[in-house]
Amino acid sequence: MTGIHPTAFVHPDAVLGARVRVGAFSVVHADGEIGDDVIIGDHCSIGIETPLAEGIVRIGPNSIIRSHAVIYRGSEIGPRLETGHHVVIREKSFIGANLRVGNFSDIEGSCSIGDFCRFHGYVHVGKGSKIGNFVWLYSLTTATNDPLPPSHLTEPVEIRDGAVVCVGVTLMPGTVVGQGAFLTAGSTVSGSVPDAAVVAGPQGRVMCHVSKLAHHRSGLRHPWMRHLKDIFPAEAQDRLEVLGTAIGATRVLLGKPAA
Amino acid sequence: MTGIHPTAFVHPDAVLGARVRVGAFSVVHADGEIGDDVIIGDHCSIGIETPLAEGIVRIGPNSIIRSHAVIYRGSEIGPRLETGHHVVIREKSFIGANLRVGNFSDIEGSCSIGDFCRFHGYVHVGKGSKIGNFVWLYSLTTATNDPLPPSHLTEPVEIRDGAVVCVGVTLMPGTVVGQGAFLTAGSTVSGSVPDAAVVAGPQGRVMCHVSKLAHHRSGLRHPWMRHLKDIFPAEAQDRLEVLGTAIGATRVLLGKPAA
Amino acid sequence: MTGIHPTAFVHPDAVLGARVRVGAFSVVHADGEIGDDVIIGDHCSIGIETPLAEGIVRIGPNSIIRSHAVIYRGSEIGPRLETGHHVVIREKSFIGANLRVGNFSDIEGSCSIGDFCRFHGYVHVGKGSKIGNFVWLYSLTTATNDPLPPSHLTEPVEIRDGAVVCVGVTLMPGTVVGQGAFLTAGSTVSGSVPDAAVVAGPQGRVMCHVSKLAHHRSGLRHPWMRHLKDIFPAEAQDRLEVLGTAIGATRVLLGKPAA
Repeated sequence: MTGIHPTAFVHPDAVLGARVRVGAFSVVHADGEIGDDVIIGDHCSIGIETPLAEGIVRIGPNSIIRSHAVIYRGSEIGPRLETGHHVVIREKSFIGANLRVGNFSDIEGSCSIGDFCRFHGYVHVGKGSKIGNFVWLYSLTTATNDPLPPSHLTEPVEIRDGAVVCVGVTLMPGTVVGQGAFLTAGSTVSGSVPDAAVVAGPQGRVMCHVSKLAHHRSGLRHPWMRHLKDIFPAEAQDRLEVLGTAIGATRVLLGKPAA
Repeated sequence: MTGIHPTAFVHPDAVLGARVRVGAFSVVHADGEIGDDVIIGDHCSIGIETPLAEGIVRIGPNSIIRSHAVIYRGSEIGPRLETGHHVVIREKSFIGANLRVGNFSDIEGSCSIGDFCRFHGYVHVGKGSKIGNFVWLYSLTTATNDPLPPSHLTEPVEIRDGAVVCVGVTLMPGTVVGQGAFLTAGSTVSGSVPDAAVVAGPQGRVMCHVSKLAHHRSGLRHPWMRHLKDIFPAEAQDRLEVLGTAIGATRVLLGKPAA
Repeated sequence: MTGIHPTAFVHPDAVLGARVRVGAFSVVHADGEIGDDVIIGDHCSIGIETPLAEGIVRIGPNSIIRSHAVIYRGSEIGPRLETGHHVVIREKSFIGANLRVGNFSDIEGSCSIGDFCRFHGYVHVGKGSKIGNFVWLYSLTTATNDPLPPSHLTEPVEIRDGAVVCVGVTLMPGTVVGQGAFLTAGSTVSGSVPDAAVVAGPQGRVMCHVSKLAHHRSGLRHPWMRHLKDIFPAEAQDRLEVLGTAIGATRVLLGKPAA
């Protein structure tokens, strides 16, 4: 695929960088500003209007937006965004470099996401969430924000650098996940999770330090930055090194509820 | 956006009310009957044919249908429907006024949904479900219907007025959720949930009356109608008042399994 | 609907069988090879390019692909595929006859799926999964594959013939689900599940033999093939009979963790 597909609809006020490709039946609305070398798949809607935000959505260069994605106006997205299919990104999302976000995920807006985050599918980032750098959210992660549902109250979630949230975790309103923490599959987590803590179960109890997480056959062991640097670009390497060292040096108190 | 987008496809037999807007690359099939002032986003398919139902789908006035939504023929939907993106509504769905349903939710048909319901994302309303008025279904609510999967048996779920189903709840086949009940995040619920009961955990145990649910800093307390009336239109106010009073006056027996 | 919708886009190199129908605004890319009598709904993208695979995607005759589906090139799919809406099937998926897969499900590629499988909605089949014949995956089934997330390690899941995975089950990396096993709603399962075992809970414990699963009012009892043969076509009947007999003849040891 090269260039704008003959069936695509690019609004005359949209701004497209060099070598942008737009797939069949995709729409770039008036408020879309697409960086150089971006690839947009089929059936996308970029720059959707909303009364909740003004201004353009700026999508950084070298991004890949897969089919059926929906991105609102009024957001700022760094270079090398990579989305799966059927992804939704609402207005006022401030997203750093090289976010990868999987199929059917939903970033609900008024949120900040750092650099080099990796989200899998069916991830729900509730409105107002604050997510650091190098954060992993696996499938069906749900970041809630209403402490007394339903109400007007809002206590969004914060997830700090290098944390790993496994499949099916529910982050209760106001949860703060410490740097490099690891939330095991299916856990429900609330309160304040210490840095580098492994948390498990329906009450989100602290089990151990992440360095206890190992894979016996391969000998690999957390923090994960030790064995997974190579999937990140050159400019991320120093930051990964510093982050891995900081997480490795942390100590945690065992057997305490995360709250 | 005003009027029918030049790229949209509206079947000549479809019926469109006054001031209807249809987004880019959306399809209104022959069996679509769209009320006045409805807004349809991009990439929608409205009035999809199926051998399982005859007749039109009637969508009430002032509705907003966001992009990539799929609505079958053979349903009746009240005024002020508001859908998120990528929503599916199957045939024989009878839906009251002002349903709001979030991204990636799936209403599987042959069901009834009352007025002023609020569903968040990834909500699965199984075929045959019966849902009252003012019901809240949070993300990843799943309403099942087969008591011996897989089989031809079907025991759909019923959820009564004002009930709140939190994130990630599974409603087992045949569950009846009482008026104003509150199902906590991640619980699995079966049998008959008493009115105004708070239910929690994998066995769906009754914990307390909803009036015990409070937010300390704000002083807010359930039933939720006390502090959240303002998001509903004028014609809902009296009904909310009556419902809140009824729920507040209920007593529940503690420590019993919901079944 | 008959034939190719005037708004559809079929690449001149795509190969379409007899009587194929293609819905509004759907795309069949150059690498799509569509069997006779296939029906493709609106807004689909079939045969999507990827650097991860070469060659066509062959879709068997008499398939029904519902709207907003995404199917990559480099896969082989048997006759009578039936997808829901917004389904994703990635490259290098080798899929047998008559798979039915529900709305918002995601088959992540490099996997094999046997004949006559039935997947409901929001099902995530992780990369490399190996799934037998007559397997049921209910909503929100997640088949993971990384034993030390995040890492380069991969231990995909295997699910054998006739197994039933209920709503919201997480299959941990490397899980092998035995023939005819039954994983109850919300369980988290790892290790090796014996044939015909019923497994439940967050530690995936073996509870009993599937023949203990019964519905009192109807008198129906597992294995499910005894009462649900009629939904499968004639050529499946003998295989179902043999499979049901084999599962019924199994014995399991109780009270042991699945691992």
